[in-house]
Amino acid sequence: MLYLIGLGLCDLTDITVKGLEIVKKCEKVYLEHYTSVLYNVSDNIEKLEDFYSKKVLLADREMVESQSDEILDGSVDGDIAFLVVGDPLGATTHTDLILRAIQRGIKYKIVHNASIMNAVGCCGLQLYNFGETVSIPLWTENWKPSSFMDKILANKKRGLHTLCLLDIKVKEKSLEAMMKGKVAYEPPRFMKTNEAASQIIESFETLDQKEYDGVLDESSYCIGLARVGSDDQSIVRCGLSQMVNEDLGKPLHCLVIEGNLHPLEADMLALFTK
Amino acid sequence: MLYLIGLGLCDLTDITVKGLEIVKKCEKVYLEHYTSVLYNVSDNIEKLEDFYSKKVLLADREMVESQSDEILDGSVDGDIAFLVVGDPLGATTHTDLILRAIQRGIKYKIVHNASIMNAVGCCGLQLYNFGETVSIPLWTENWKPSSFMDKILANKKRGLHTLCLLDIKVKEKSLEAMMKGKVAYEPPRFMKTNEAASQIIESFETLDQKEYDGVLDESSYCIGLARVGSDDQSIVRCGLSQMVNEDLGKPLHCLVIEGNLHPLEADMLALFTK
Repeated sequence: MLYLIGLGLCDLTDITVKGLEIVKKCEKVYLEHYTSVLYNVSDNIEKLEDFYSKKVLLADREMVESQSDEILDGSVDGDIAFLVVGDPLGATTHTDLILRAIQRGIKYKIVHNASIMNAVGCCGLQLYNFGETVSIPLWTENWKPSSFMDKILANKKRGLHTLCLLDIKVKEKSLEAMMKGKVAYEPPRFMKTNEAASQIIESFETLDQKEYDGVLDESSYCIGLARVGSDDQSIVRCGLSQMVNEDLGKPLHCLVIEGNLHPLEADMLALFTK
Repeated sequence: MLYLIGLGLCDLTDITVKGLEIVKKCEKVYLEHYTSVLYNVSDNIEKLEDFYSKKVLLADREMVESQSDEILDGSVDGDIAFLVVGDPLGATTHTDLILRAIQRGIKYKIVHNASIMNAVGCCGLQLYNFGETVSIPLWTENWKPSSFMDKILANKKRGLHTLCLLDIKVKEKSLEAMMKGKVAYEPPRFMKTNEAASQIIESFETLDQKEYDGVLDESSYCIGLARVGSDDQSIVRCGLSQMVNEDLGKPLHCLVIEGNLHPLEADMLALFTK
């Protein structure tokens, strides 16, 4: 059996009792290590191993995409746990892993957990007032895609909030090293709310003014969230241009672009407004 | 401290390790008992009490809305747990409880968990391809609101999936009894996917044909999900008119109206297609 187990958002103890029981009985335990990181333990795999009383194998993008057979081999006759930060079905590649398991006649089971897609409710906005979620990529000097703006604007025109997931680069191959024929990895990078706000503001330049006029501008309210679910969670609400100057500290961050507010949403957001 | 603790979707063991540790140290434990039910224990509160080694007090809608002072009183100097099926911030009234706590200077903490808003990913659809979530109310003979159709159609026109949350009536006052000046409660009712599909089809009659022509019709694919996260979870994909004849069994149910499919989504959905 292949168990895909959500770890929740932050702490070791965010795993469910069911998930922990399964991990303890599995022969091998893999931790998916590229679509997200567990805030309080990501740099200290030993903490996880102590908590589970198990060896934990890191599964990076290359391994899950090209060497998934290793994970699946053990699941044919035994029990394998594949741990995913948040809920196991937030990222496409895990669907892919399930499909490959099914092709090989391997049974699977999902143990759900919180993900930022529902935990974002902690800022006071109602989940059913959110439109489509967007991902904002880390721009480089020559690569500045802004297609996320279309979705933000489409949501905003319908009065809906937008959850913006911010880019994470973990174990990305270094271009510089590749050009020298070597394999080396860039240090991990986590996009912050100030960078996201800055990219959104810069994106206005690429749009026709009539697309955003009266819908979104630099003073539109947004909500920055950092380390949701942890004891040092931080939530700040302010205008986009002000968010550029806010530092919410350590990762992970996400940003919400506000739609129309219900009075209860407004009351709760007032707690976080700068 | 007031702890709002998510219980997850189905089983006793869906609570997080963190959540369970907090429940065990709290002086009083309330279970929110009207926006959802914990599938495998809702009719057997003793199971919860045994698992927590604690007395569990049921908090119905009346209590949370009108007698919340009882819950808050204990939180001033002590620790109170308010348990919510799914994630604690899916329903408006819990924001309300937090706001009332803050007004009284009471600290609060949220322990997140899976909710159907993210666990719906188990059918293979990607969470970021969902638009606005809708609630479909149980119709009565004389009350047949169909405003959910506008949102489904707006999502569909943008190629987005729609998660339809289906109505639950728990401890609803009996109209018949009220007319006799008495207070009595109707038996609990849980809307099923076949009823939801039937109401959607009936709603076409109230719409101008040009609003839905080429967007949605009786043959459009939908996905029924029942008891998500449990061992007897059921997922069925078929046309809306066929869903009317499908019985997915015991609650809780939800329904997804499909938008455009990514190839990986289509591959995964094929597993559930009738």
